[in-house]
Amino acid sequence: MPLTTGDPLPSWNEGPAKEAILAYIARITNAESPDFLPSPERIAVFDNDGTLWPEHPLPFQAAFAIDELSSRIPREPHLAADPMVQAALAGDLAKLLEGPRYEGLLQILALTHAGMSVDAFRRTVEAWLVSARHPRFDRPYDALTYLPMQELLRYLQANNFKNFIVSGGGVDFMRVWVERVYGIPPEQVVGSTARTTFELGAAGPVLTKTLDYLFVNDKGGKPVGIHQFIGRRPTLCCGNSDGDHEMLQYTTINNPRPSFGLLVHHTDPEREYAYAAKSTSTGKLVEALAAAPSRGWCVVDMKEDWNRVFEVD
Amino acid sequence: MPLTTGDPLPSWNEGPAKEAILAYIARITNAESPDFLPSPERIAVFDNDGTLWPEHPLPFQAAFAIDELSSRIPREPHLAADPMVQAALAGDLAKLLEGPRYEGLLQILALTHAGMSVDAFRRTVEAWLVSARHPRFDRPYDALTYLPMQELLRYLQANNFKNFIVSGGGVDFMRVWVERVYGIPPEQVVGSTARTTFELGAAGPVLTKTLDYLFVNDKGGKPVGIHQFIGRRPTLCCGNSDGDHEMLQYTTINNPRPSFGLLVHHTDPEREYAYAAKSTSTGKLVEALAAAPSRGWCVVDMKEDWNRVFEVD
Repeated sequence: MPLTTGDPLPSWNEGPAKEAILAYIARITNAESPDFLPSPERIAVFDNDGTLWPEHPLPFQAAFAIDELSSRIPREPHLAADPMVQAALAGDLAKLLEGPRYEGLLQILALTHAGMSVDAFRRTVEAWLVSARHPRFDRPYDALTYLPMQELLRYLQANNFKNFIVSGGGVDFMRVWVERVYGIPPEQVVGSTARTTFELGAAGPVLTKTLDYLFVNDKGGKPVGIHQFIGRRPTLCCGNSDGDHEMLQYTTINNPRPSFGLLVHHTDPEREYAYAAKSTSTGKLVEALAAAPSRGWCVVDMKEDWNRVFEVD
Repeated sequence: MPLTTGDPLPSWNEGPAKEAILAYIARITNAESPDFLPSPERIAVFDNDGTLWPEHPLPFQAAFAIDELSSRIPREPHLAADPMVQAALAGDLAKLLEGPRYEGLLQILALTHAGMSVDAFRRTVEAWLVSARHPRFDRPYDALTYLPMQELLRYLQANNFKNFIVSGGGVDFMRVWVERVYGIPPEQVVGSTARTTFELGAAGPVLTKTLDYLFVNDKGGKPVGIHQFIGRRPTLCCGNSDGDHEMLQYTTINNPRPSFGLLVHHTDPEREYAYAAKSTSTGKLVEALAAAPSRGWCVVDMKEDWNRVFEVD
């Protein structure tokens, strides 16, 4: 039986999404059921941006990079003359993504995510989380996680799931705060990575961030990252966009274990945002959402299914 | 206090190595001590070949590759004409390691560790473990783990350490059997990796092994792999060779947390092997062993410190 008392998901309205989650957990924790899932196989993977916290008006890591560039310009005025820095400060993502190899974005990453020790990078992210505020909600970014998803994380953990973040975001960026914010330890984060270099300096060991061997943990890269870091197939997967489509497929299609796929649909412009019903480029319904009915994935209608969005609404 | 009753390390003789291990665990589990280590920081990393099981006459994964080639030659006779396959079958490691990029070794890896699905590779390794026997001990390879190190793994786990394998071996090779053999789940294995490719085929999702973006998790690569996969500094590290030197440095030098380094020294030609006292190429004491006294690393003298080596001696 599920290992909780009372309603484990109080921020979820009664309805098909909540029912589907509770029914799945009841099924796989019932030792008498043929669908019983042994604890080591209870691997849950969560996208982060748009699934556990918002991704508008920009992914929060992009906001970090922009704030970081802004704060450095007084000390490093040459940055202001760089057209890619100008594009970043103007929020011109299209310009940064021009070219087949996204040179603009890589240049911004090189300026803000490489060339420093992992410890120095950690301190920079920590300082940013303390000082920065989300432009619309006027709160620290890490105070903006979705309360219903936090409840789901805790409910799964109480039922012996091991929760992993599987995000396109940089793993070093996320590991700074995931343990405090989600109760997920750093070693349970799969994200975009590049190699560090190791050196034993006079003050001790130093790992320095580079952009070498960049691995982008998105779309088809997510199952690849899951295999590389976790090494077994998840049984529960939560996402919100086409970046999560392949990991939803990997989790649920022809999985010999009983599995569960979930998509957060952003339908609430009042409390959060409304988007992704249609892809802006093709006008089609986002592929993963379009596939949900035939795949049996649970679509969470944020406006209908959640009675609260944030810890403090 | 340490969370065990009785002697947690019965295969270890009384002596400085056993004393040092017990003293470290007593110190970091004592909530009254300034050296108390909170459970999430109890990260232990273990080399595998030569530290948890033997690496002679060949690393066991090399024995797997050779056996795999031998078994395929009747069906794929062209393999027998390949000079690198011939070198592998003759155990001529020097030839495989010729050239700046180890083309011979890469060719053997391409034949035995790439081009198949991760599921097919897993089945091949499982079948090999059932059929193959170690040439000297005449037992399945996975029956040859060191009993004293198994006791140490269990003792650490009982004291809330999270144990990770950090090996130069291939992660896909190790993940097949680590849970059964060491009680370590697949997601706690850091090893050499290459990327897979993801495809949704008619029968479901398929991950195919390649040699692209090969990462060799050895020497300076071990701290890099630890950072990439675990994301925090270990506090306990066990190795046996210069391949482990950098991860011992990373674990113990100027670590703000109380840390422990251990080297298994192969001194027992009767029950196991005697080697590594001196590097064969330079005639010097192996660097990591030579550094042990000044670094305070615990050197385990297999002959003196272990009253049993294997489960069945």
